[in-house]
Amino acid sequence: MKIDINCDMGESYGRFRIGNDEEIMPYISSCNIACGMHGGDPSTVIDTIQMASALGKNVGAHPSYPDHIGFGRRSMSLSYKEAFDLVVFQVATLYTLAARAGTKLSHVKVHGALYNDAAKDKDLARPIVDAIKYIDPNLKIFTLPDSEVSAVAEELEMAVVREAFADRRYTEDLSLQSRSIPGAVLEDPEMAADQVLNIVKNQEVETATGMKTRLQADTLCIHGDTPTAVSIARTIYDRLQSEGINIGSW
Amino acid sequence: MKIDINCDMGESYGRFRIGNDEEIMPYISSCNIACGMHGGDPSTVIDTIQMASALGKNVGAHPSYPDHIGFGRRSMSLSYKEAFDLVVFQVATLYTLAARAGTKLSHVKVHGALYNDAAKDKDLARPIVDAIKYIDPNLKIFTLPDSEVSAVAEELEMAVVREAFADRRYTEDLSLQSRSIPGAVLEDPEMAADQVLNIVKNQEVETATGMKTRLQADTLCIHGDTPTAVSIARTIYDRLQSEGINIGSW
Amino acid sequence: MKIDINCDMGESYGRFRIGNDEEIMPYISSCNIACGMHGGDPSTVIDTIQMASALGKNVGAHPSYPDHIGFGRRSMSLSYKEAFDLVVFQVATLYTLAARAGTKLSHVKVHGALYNDAAKDKDLARPIVDAIKYIDPNLKIFTLPDSEVSAVAEELEMAVVREAFADRRYTEDLSLQSRSIPGAVLEDPEMAADQVLNIVKNQEVETATGMKTRLQADTLCIHGDTPTAVSIARTIYDRLQSEGINIGSW
Amino acid sequence: MKIDINCDMGESYGRFRIGNDEEIMPYISSCNIACGMHGGDPSTVIDTIQMASALGKNVGAHPSYPDHIGFGRRSMSLSYKEAFDLVVFQVATLYTLAARAGTKLSHVKVHGALYNDAAKDKDLARPIVDAIKYIDPNLKIFTLPDSEVSAVAEELEMAVVREAFADRRYTEDLSLQSRSIPGAVLEDPEMAADQVLNIVKNQEVETATGMKTRLQADTLCIHGDTPTAVSIARTIYDRLQSEGINIGSW
Repeated sequence: MKIDINCDMGESYGRFRIGNDEEIMPYISSCNIACGMHGGDPSTVIDTIQMASALGKNVGAHPSYPDHIGFGRRSMSLSYKEAFDLVVFQVATLYTLAARAGTKLSHVKVHGALYNDAAKDKDLARPIVDAIKYIDPNLKIFTLPDSEVSAVAEELEMAVVREAFADRRYTEDLSLQSRSIPGAVLEDPEMAADQVLNIVKNQEVETATGMKTRLQADTLCIHGDTPTAVSIARTIYDRLQSEGINIGSW
Repeated sequence: MKIDINCDMGESYGRFRIGNDEEIMPYISSCNIACGMHGGDPSTVIDTIQMASALGKNVGAHPSYPDHIGFGRRSMSLSYKEAFDLVVFQVATLYTLAARAGTKLSHVKVHGALYNDAAKDKDLARPIVDAIKYIDPNLKIFTLPDSEVSAVAEELEMAVVREAFADRRYTEDLSLQSRSIPGAVLEDPEMAADQVLNIVKNQEVETATGMKTRLQADTLCIHGDTPTAVSIARTIYDRLQSEGINIGSW
Repeated sequence: MKIDINCDMGESYGRFRIGNDEEIMPYISSCNIACGMHGGDPSTVIDTIQMASALGKNVGAHPSYPDHIGFGRRSMSLSYKEAFDLVVFQVATLYTLAARAGTKLSHVKVHGALYNDAAKDKDLARPIVDAIKYIDPNLKIFTLPDSEVSAVAEELEMAVVREAFADRRYTEDLSLQSRSIPGAVLEDPEMAADQVLNIVKNQEVETATGMKTRLQADTLCIHGDTPTAVSIARTIYDRLQSEGINIGSW
Repeated sequence: MKIDINCDMGESYGRFRIGNDEEIMPYISSCNIACGMHGGDPSTVIDTIQMASALGKNVGAHPSYPDHIGFGRRSMSLSYKEAFDLVVFQVATLYTLAARAGTKLSHVKVHGALYNDAAKDKDLARPIVDAIKYIDPNLKIFTLPDSEVSAVAEELEMAVVREAFADRRYTEDLSLQSRSIPGAVLEDPEMAADQVLNIVKNQEVETATGMKTRLQADTLCIHGDTPTAVSIARTIYDRLQSEGINIGSW
């Protein structure tokens, strides 16, 4: 039995530090590394890739809308060409950097609003998947199960890694509960670990209303900027270990 | 007896948070607020000005080289016109915002490398002082005693507020000890308060070599991003209060 | 009889030059000057304001979404607070700069996608009008007749200047014909001047289908980056002069 | 007999157009393509690389200081690590993009102030050459003959392509005459072609004072933003053709 644990990394921007990359990295298997457009200055990106490669983690690209002030969390209207070029450009950078750090870029997980928008909008999913395929048809694409990205990827014969969230409360339709609702983020490490184990062992998740719903995932995301993020990462790691479940690639 | 305590503020950039503005502000008298070019997104700048105004603090502008990744700490070569326009533009923004927040922009302290470069280079000091005077000849200019900025300001009949540092170790020639030397930052709140009281009461500072040197200052700077910054601010405040020294404007 | 002619200006960005500000400015009465977020570096903004003030033109602010690559022409999703602060920050800068250049900021015309989005979306129009009023309730707001911005402005008792376009073809519902359709931009100076005179003298416009439709406007916009922009500006100026119609403020 | 003709390209930034890439490209053999930090939005960079590759031109990277407003023409103080990472990051992007466009990145020419500063400063030349070697030790480095970059490259066994300028007047010490002096830019196509032929055939250049000085070069640069740039490119091309000199790689 095996499950991938991923975390967004390399999002610091010069002296503006964000996340806890060094402390979390030992407990996960896949890093989604910022490409400079919502976070990630050159030094941070390069150092994070080298650290991930040295620890044998999957190195993935985490491209975004170009918006530092909004941290890539504000939707923008893009043409097909703008979206395609934006993703190609960002993934291209990481592709060479991963190779020079002694590994191979393994996957792409688009960031923030671009992730959410593309999941629902086929006209945005299409240039994103085309862009990833243009860089390398062997790149794996992290996305929500049953998303538009997933549908386009299948059509273009690109491999999808279905993602679920370790530390976010789900609603009954399997969308994430709004962060404005108290309890939407599972800050208690044991609760997050319970959710992880439930998804891994039973392919099911307990929603905000207490209902159990089927949920299949190949990778589980930890948010690195939750105040208890390091503790969540370690607790999930320990609980999986003690259940004999390996943390590792899809 | 009276001394001004100042701190750089409003330097956060969207979700990239830096400093401890809310916790420190009660203990100081002057805020130097970022103008968007090294930090300070519109919402942060506006909120910080409104908070400072509501608490009756001096609202100052903190313009910088245009460099977010380097946080304004990397020198850039600028022509007279580039430097003049850069400072005019940034101070202009704060000037209106201070007025709308119910106060009046009181002073300008240029940031980081621009502060240090202008202190030593008359060709850079000149456009900076000209720019501040262009916005309002009543604005006060924070700078090192005996700096080129100070000399130009005197020549142009602009008021100078001589600045010293509460939490940094001085060398014998009254420059700041390099941050790369252990102990260069006074993280111990009592040590910082001792230095403040020595400067305020005796117009002298104890240098890294233990020598006592004369140092006259009208304002003392606390760095908001020292790990112990809040504690330093509070301790200085308490010690000054208990000595009967008022914290307040020049 | 009198009509205001306006043009977006100050949109160059360092060595990236755009528009023909100096050649066009003599023929118009109102300048909408970029504020740095889609174009407009500090030197360009300051120089343009000074030139406009020296020539006795109306100096207005032209705030935008923060997006240089997209030139402010890509919609972004903003919260009320983000939109309010974005406009406040940009207009604040121009407000001081106009005063220092010896004039008074007269109006605000939001730029590009922000202009179009706010015209249709009350939730975006509201923070924009609130922001302009916060800076100065006497500022006039350029917007489309019958837009949401117009409705909100009326509600908040802010003066509206109704804008029409000299050099763009209208459809029957008085929206602008898409630039992708040949002829959508009236590059022929005489055709643009005909449209201007028809609007000014008859309060009507001939649409793409040849229909005449009623259109009332207080200001007419010339686009400075049309290849024939200077010639359009001059021709309109000459034709209005020869008809005895003054070019000047609302 | 053979000479390489190069031009900086892909420096446009969204709607901010600069240069005449399409018209000039047929007449040259090497393109130095912006990497996004002084110019070059993702679409421009990608399109320019594809055009250059389709026409069989050498595709090179043109990394710079991070400064759009200053167009990379203002010096910045960088640490070794900042300079190394800055160049690695930018070249990495072009490296993948060149490969996807069906070619291989052939060379690196650093841009503007970074080019000039590194030519004179070994502490800056070192991280730049290290960075280029880190990406690929087979990349060729464009630099001034006898520069610090040249010396470091030799030490690190990296191939250097010595660059001279077709359209700039030289002083007696073989530096470029300041652009502020009339005639410093050779806008007359025939004069530029004369200079090119003199360098290629006689390894000599006539300086501003009329002296003939020895100058050996492997590539000659045309500036794409000179008003007569297209004509210069074509004239040089024609004159070299008529002399039986091939335009092509070092």
